[in-house]
Amino acid sequence: MQQPIAILDSGVGGLTVVKEVMRQLPREKIIYFGDTARAPYGPRPSEEVLRFTREIVDYLIQYDPKMIVIACNTATAVALQDIRSKVNIPVVGVIYPGARAAIGRTQTGYVGVIGTEGTINSGAYDAALKRLRPDIEVLSKACPKFVPLVERGNFRSAETYDAVESSLIGLKGSSIDCLILGCTHYPYLADTISEVMGPEVTLISSADETAREISTILHDQGKLSRNEPVPIHHFCCSGDPRMFKSIAQQWLNKEIELTPVVWQVPKIG
Amino acid sequence: MQQPIAILDSGVGGLTVVKEVMRQLPREKIIYFGDTARAPYGPRPSEEVLRFTREIVDYLIQYDPKMIVIACNTATAVALQDIRSKVNIPVVGVIYPGARAAIGRTQTGYVGVIGTEGTINSGAYDAALKRLRPDIEVLSKACPKFVPLVERGNFRSAETYDAVESSLIGLKGSSIDCLILGCTHYPYLADTISEVMGPEVTLISSADETAREISTILHDQGKLSRNEPVPIHHFCCSGDPRMFKSIAQQWLNKEIELTPVVWQVPKIG
Repeated sequence: MQQPIAILDSGVGGLTVVKEVMRQLPREKIIYFGDTARAPYGPRPSEEVLRFTREIVDYLIQYDPKMIVIACNTATAVALQDIRSKVNIPVVGVIYPGARAAIGRTQTGYVGVIGTEGTINSGAYDAALKRLRPDIEVLSKACPKFVPLVERGNFRSAETYDAVESSLIGLKGSSIDCLILGCTHYPYLADTISEVMGPEVTLISSADETAREISTILHDQGKLSRNEPVPIHHFCCSGDPRMFKSIAQQWLNKEIELTPVVWQVPKIG
Repeated sequence: MQQPIAILDSGVGGLTVVKEVMRQLPREKIIYFGDTARAPYGPRPSEEVLRFTREIVDYLIQYDPKMIVIACNTATAVALQDIRSKVNIPVVGVIYPGARAAIGRTQTGYVGVIGTEGTINSGAYDAALKRLRPDIEVLSKACPKFVPLVERGNFRSAETYDAVESSLIGLKGSSIDCLILGCTHYPYLADTISEVMGPEVTLISSADETAREISTILHDQGKLSRNEPVPIHHFCCSGDPRMFKSIAQQWLNKEIELTPVVWQVPKIG
């Protein structure tokens, strides 16, 4: 029985990590949980995000995963250390992978970070970047307009361009040469963000970089799958399964089967 | 007492990894061993490379390192699995980091690899790339002219351009969109290689990517240093210390102190 990688998110944003794991590690089996009934986590108190994350981890542990990936910036900022201390398998978040990639690529030593208000206000990226390299200069900006654009599928339009341009004032023309897309939704706006920022600024996708680190850690632990592709992945969500399935299939560009959630997630407003 | 990262190489090429670790992880202390008396490893039989690598690891273990980095493609190809089975700390080579970075970045699925004849003939990069993603297409090319150019400090000249252009025939104009610099010397020729290959081809430096994976694994294990910079690094070599020190200071662009090698490495032709 092939042990899966368990990937969790507040909703559908973590599917960008799923897509990259499928591409970079096609032999790995995935079990995904999207807490769509309680998304978004951003505006919730930390205690609630921590409790929700623990509940989902408890649920996913029954699948005997070899690793847990918290594919949500808010939950990573709040719950990563707690979950790490509670399970005896590796736990990977989305913040350090992006921070490490930016440190690897920046030549100027100035790194930009964009994310939801929750993520930016948590200061988690600043802390991670300075933990690794204390002399790094970080310019952060919350971009609350981006997630609604992505969730409406509005990736490329005049409205999107205007929203991106106005959101990135202060970053464009600064000394940054790397910009971390600190929200799992933002890779869908990468073309527009890149157009606004110009070719000198490298965009860092948390999703790509997290998949890369999943590979590194599984390899270090001798736990990379040797199975032949294609594994059958499992997807589950706490909210409307039809809507989740429709979005997931569109984003992953393939048919998926939903696994019914046996444990009923409490519907807390 | 801060535990160091032990980095070993057949000679001076591994200093490109040292430079990147200093940049990406400035809080980490390094102990470096360059086996300059017995370099290069490329033309030696595998049994000899394995024995030399074991000897150096035995020597470095006395410094109580928290990780061993085999910063030499030949030694990684031959000895990584053996060393991993013998020590109870993480052992990182330079091949998988480059392979993972290429898989993360390629859009075409075609990846180029250049290295010494020993590395290319070992097929180690092909194996690593296909182990991770079986459908990847790999184009490899040995570039025996490159190391002598680098060791003479001839990074940018008409001679260098001609050597690079003639060596990369077969790769230029192919479907590859990533080119792995599969030799620790090659980053010094990156500007010329990039000029020949054109802007559509992303160069992957093993040194950068290995430093990144060192960060990932130390972080996963809760072993990142919390010390304030700047740690005092130790450098030792088995050959002429003055020559080593001169090259190391030039490459690292800083003053270094050489640590005398107490254990006399056998001078085997």
